[in-house]
Amino acid sequence: MHLNYTVGYIIPIVLDALKDTELSGDWWDIQPGVVRLCGDTVEERTKNMDKTTRRWREAQRFEILSGWRDEIYTVYAPKGSPFFYMERSAHPLFGVLAYGSHMTVYVPATPTTPLRIWVPRRAAGKATYPGMLDNTVAGGMGNGAGPWECIIKEAGEEASLEESLVRAKAKPVGFVSYFYVRHKEAGGEAGLLQPEIEYCYDMAVEAPDSGGPTLKPCDGEVAVHILMDIDEVVANLKNGKFKPNCSAVLLDFFIRHGIITAENEPDYLEIYTRLHRRLEFPTR
Amino acid sequence: MHLNYTVGYIIPIVLDALKDTELSGDWWDIQPGVVRLCGDTVEERTKNMDKTTRRWREAQRFEILSGWRDEIYTVYAPKGSPFFYMERSAHPLFGVLAYGSHMTVYVPATPTTPLRIWVPRRAAGKATYPGMLDNTVAGGMGNGAGPWECIIKEAGEEASLEESLVRAKAKPVGFVSYFYVRHKEAGGEAGLLQPEIEYCYDMAVEAPDSGGPTLKPCDGEVAVHILMDIDEVVANLKNGKFKPNCSAVLLDFFIRHGIITAENEPDYLEIYTRLHRRLEFPTR
Repeated sequence: MHLNYTVGYIIPIVLDALKDTELSGDWWDIQPGVVRLCGDTVEERTKNMDKTTRRWREAQRFEILSGWRDEIYTVYAPKGSPFFYMERSAHPLFGVLAYGSHMTVYVPATPTTPLRIWVPRRAAGKATYPGMLDNTVAGGMGNGAGPWECIIKEAGEEASLEESLVRAKAKPVGFVSYFYVRHKEAGGEAGLLQPEIEYCYDMAVEAPDSGGPTLKPCDGEVAVHILMDIDEVVANLKNGKFKPNCSAVLLDFFIRHGIITAENEPDYLEIYTRLHRRLEFPTR
Repeated sequence: MHLNYTVGYIIPIVLDALKDTELSGDWWDIQPGVVRLCGDTVEERTKNMDKTTRRWREAQRFEILSGWRDEIYTVYAPKGSPFFYMERSAHPLFGVLAYGSHMTVYVPATPTTPLRIWVPRRAAGKATYPGMLDNTVAGGMGNGAGPWECIIKEAGEEASLEESLVRAKAKPVGFVSYFYVRHKEAGGEAGLLQPEIEYCYDMAVEAPDSGGPTLKPCDGEVAVHILMDIDEVVANLKNGKFKPNCSAVLLDFFIRHGIITAENEPDYLEIYTRLHRRLEFPTR
């Protein structure tokens, strides 16, 4: 059975590991320019991927696998059917498309106060991007959850937001899609390829002194939540203080909310189309 | 001076006209696979384009030129500098990128009423898409206007909206970009290529019975404005009653407002990325 579609891209350090049959078994068919994961069924492919990544982890071949999460990501075939499942921490090794949900919780501008955004600072001990600023609520879509259920769950875990409040006030507003090349700060090997689709949600709340929620960390992944004026958010973006994909979500928010406009940003067209890249892989 | 970038695509009926030097002078350099507008300066290229399109109009070579508007569109070189200027009605003959501004004026949902949108029906006598439904306010960006000034002007002309109200309440929310292949209903030759960027604006207003504006035609291009429930808008979209590019603007509105979601639309990813196509031409 030959499958003629591409679900990800690998870089040379990964190809070298795949060529080493001591490490990667006979679960891969390596041809010039293309590598095929063997297996005629979803189950076989999933098993072959699992054996490969577990063996790499045991051999400490890739630093990125030290962040093993026991969380399952789905890789899709055309028409949205699953092609195989794999461990979340390994997906950048194969450059396969990942999905997540990001929510911007904000206090709208009033005649006397500018728009403010609830911005969390990531815990200093986090394996990826420790201490950096983040979107209010954000999480990868693993273990079969859809984007809406993902954001509800993460809103409770990361920001102590009541499920009933989130279900009533969170609004789906599209997504950003892009091809991320991993920095060192992402943890693990730099240069790995990570195409992503992040579903975006907006949630307008009252200010705490007007009866709105005060966001608090819940699960230890966030150090603190800060209610930042828009100017402070922009300054932190310019200084590279935000986790990179969170910057993409904020730029999309700024464009949808008329903060970045065609009149004040010369690269308006370029920025917005690049935030909505059409990825060349099958999707969910 | 050789310029190595593409600003548009032509189809064979246009190439035939360009090859006819009786019609098109010596203002075009025709090579296999590529046609170059002669002229070393913006002024020369503009003059050569103008002579060509005026001669075609006199010879009644293309039906689309019967809609001659004496309105100037700008075609851009890289980095946003003008490459040449041309008559608006002729731009689909050359498949060059056009720009416009579209605004959705809506009455937000309340606990007892669904979201409603002000929808104009185009005048029966209009040369393009007579009688079809349209975005609340929409217009092509000609004669050097930017997107914001364009929408302010059109809001007055098409919907009798006060300039002060529009300046206070209209919100820039991004744009849609796509490659339109002209239907017969567009007027003129079918099959002409029309890549477009439409800057989008949202404007929330009160219902007329709560003191909000009642939209009225002003310049004769619109027959009537109807305040439609969202279900009625969707039914009209499904029945093809909207001008095609207005459907694109409404789909973007529905996604940004959480009406179309990842959970209720299987083609969510495909629709939204295609609404933000990265066009291969230099832009403003």
